[in-house]
Amino acid sequence: MNSKQEQIKKFCRERNWDQFHNPKDILLGIVEEVGEFRNLAKWEQDPQVIRKVFLEKKAEVEDGIGDMFWFLSLLANSYDIDIDQAAQVVIDENERRFPLDQTKDRHTNINLGGYDGHH
Amino acid sequence: MNSKQEQIKKFCRERNWDQFHNPKDILLGIVEEVGEFRNLAKWEQDPQVIRKVFLEKKAEVEDGIGDMFWFLSLLANSYDIDIDQAAQVVIDENERRFPLDQTKDRHTNINLGGYDGHH
Amino acid sequence: MNSKQEQIKKFCRERNWDQFHNPKDILLGIVEEVGEFRNLAKWEQDPQVIRKVFLEKKAEVEDGIGDMFWFLSLLANSYDIDIDQAAQVVIDENERRFPLDQTKDRHTNINLGGYDGHH
Amino acid sequence: MNSKQEQIKKFCRERNWDQFHNPKDILLGIVEEVGEFRNLAKWEQDPQVIRKVFLEKKAEVEDGIGDMFWFLSLLANSYDIDIDQAAQVVIDENERRFPLDQTKDRHTNINLGGYDGHH
Repeated sequence: MNSKQEQIKKFCRERNWDQFHNPKDILLGIVEEVGEFRNLAKWEQDPQVIRKVFLEKKAEVEDGIGDMFWFLSLLANSYDIDIDQAAQVVIDENERRFPLDQTKDRHTNINLGGYDGHH
Repeated sequence: MNSKQEQIKKFCRERNWDQFHNPKDILLGIVEEVGEFRNLAKWEQDPQVIRKVFLEKKAEVEDGIGDMFWFLSLLANSYDIDIDQAAQVVIDENERRFPLDQTKDRHTNINLGGYDGHH
Repeated sequence: MNSKQEQIKKFCRERNWDQFHNPKDILLGIVEEVGEFRNLAKWEQDPQVIRKVFLEKKAEVEDGIGDMFWFLSLLANSYDIDIDQAAQVVIDENERRFPLDQTKDRHTNINLGGYDGHH
Repeated sequence: MNSKQEQIKKFCRERNWDQFHNPKDILLGIVEEVGEFRNLAKWEQDPQVIRKVFLEKKAEVEDGIGDMFWFLSLLANSYDIDIDQAAQVVIDENERRFPLDQTKDRHTNINLGGYDGHH
């Protein structure tokens, strides 16, 4: 298991916090983090300007990413799921689903002419 | 860097997908995963029943966790953020914010009598 | 058209704000509102206690609901959709999908024995 | 009260569904709708192309807006909140917060030079 996921597991076990880790609360915690990120980008349409502000607020962005990993670990730990293994399953699936020769320089939004091997 | 984050970076670089990775799209991707989880738990009020259905659908839960880690890696890779380091910052902060003697067997919702050292 | 949706349309037209109303930004605005609600309920497992705190914070809940309606109006106004008509379509569909004799006192989570005429 | 909100109240009362309307479930329902919208826009960076696809899928967009209004009504009805009144409170606040002479042709993202009277 990823050592950060393991540390988060230990932190929660020491506090006996599993009793509070209803998946609904964890999922809404992830949603709250997404909402906080929104304030950096909102209403700006130029991707380069958005990029600039995210780089200027890098500590804040890092903190939000850390918080999301925290919530993801709570969710995974609730069901004895190893995040690294879960990521590997997705990586393998995406290798099949988005072959390099079909998806180089091409997005995957099938509503807009993209390629997705699932469809 | 976590080796899964690294693999995802390589996958996207090969496809030249950075051009599509506007943070708004990545964040909405995470939201979509949360929405998919919702169907497992919705309207059920008994945490034990929710737990049971998540364990019965463990492969689906693992897949959703892997997808969220994927999106989190896209976000982190956009700004050269190491997820493991970001997680460590949060772990260290939470050690200070939620001291063991104040938070054992106690939640952190300050609206409902919980403890949060930030407030 | 609902008069509140109409007022919001006028407010935005006067400011020439349509240029900013990319649906991604509007959707993330809704997500941010959900995230703010989360703090009232998080980690609490007893629905009666959650109910009590929402009633105690009724002005805050009302404000969040108003904000969500605002964002929903921005989205609807972008594509000349009438929210009242859209709601009627869903009400009619739900009358067919959840007949009274199948769904009285019964939830609609098909993972947990509920009824949903779509499945 | 808005007549659609009233109809949704009646629909739920007939089915005795209030027992299921924990705000966490309602909020995650809204999140699910946002996630569904995401598939129309994802990875596309040109606002005009996004607009085109939303107009082409107008029935789907209308359905999603109706579903969000449904969930918003469930939330409001749980605490006897009138959505129209809640919207009016926000409209009045936004008149004060975003005066026309400061916000015409100008967004409200204070991270990017916008104006927001709250800050």
